[in-house]
Amino acid sequence: MTELRKTVERFWAAAEARDWTAFAETLAEDVVYTLPQTRERIAGRERYVQFNREYPGDWHLRTERIVAEPGQVVTWAHFTVGLEEMYAITFFTGTEKITSITEFWPEPYEPPAGRDHLSERY
Amino acid sequence: MTELRKTVERFWAAAEARDWTAFAETLAEDVVYTLPQTRERIAGRERYVQFNREYPGDWHLRTERIVAEPGQVVTWAHFTVGLEEMYAITFFTGTEKITSITEFWPEPYEPPAGRDHLSERY
Repeated sequence: MTELRKTVERFWAAAEARDWTAFAETLAEDVVYTLPQTRERIAGRERYVQFNREYPGDWHLRTERIVAEPGQVVTWAHFTVGLEEMYAITFFTGTEKITSITEFWPEPYEPPAGRDHLSERY
Repeated sequence: MTELRKTVERFWAAAEARDWTAFAETLAEDVVYTLPQTRERIAGRERYVQFNREYPGDWHLRTERIVAEPGQVVTWAHFTVGLEEMYAITFFTGTEKITSITEFWPEPYEPPAGRDHLSERY
C-alpha cells in the first residue's frame, strides 16, 4: 500500500468524522484544491480546512473506489445530504502529505437520443 | 508499468485514431460500460465498439492524467468537439483486457454563493 493512499484514507475518515485536526494533518501547508467545473481554486491548508468546515448540509460520505500508485491517488466517493446523493471524483498528489486535490462533481443528466438501441437504463 | 495501464493507453490511442479493430482488441468480450450520471449500461464488446463508432461529432481527446495499479486504472481525459471542451473521468478494471468501464462526464456549473472569501476563479 502506498504512503499517499493511507493519507487519503485518513483524509476521508477525518472529513466524515468532522475531525478537522486530523483532517489538517493529512495536508501539506501549501496544498492547492482545484474545481475544474467552476474554475475555482483554494490555496493553502488553512483556507481549505475552513472551506470544508463551513460546507453547509449534513453530508456523509463513503469511498466507493480507490486507485493508488506512488505519488498519485484517485477516489470515487459517494455523498449523501439527506435524501440527495452525489459523487465526487478526486485526484490527489503528494508524498506523505497531500499537496494537490483536483475534484469533480458529476451531476445526473438525461441520455441524448439515438443510443437506446445499444444501452439499457438501470 | 501495469499490464492494464498499457491496454488503457492503447484504448485511448485507438479511439482517437478511429481504429476500431485495435480498439476492440483492448476489450474483453463481455466488457460492461456504465454511465452512472444517466444510469445507462452497455453490455458486450460489439455493442460498445458500435456505440463509440456511432458517437456523433468530430471529437478529439488527450489523456491529462493516468493513475494505475494492478487491475485498476483511472484516466482523466480532455475532449474537444470543435470549440467545445469536456472532460471524461474513466475507471477501468481488468487484467490484460478491459472488463469494466465506468465513466463520468462532469459539466461546468456556477459556484454556490458564500465561498468567495476562500476561493479564486481561474
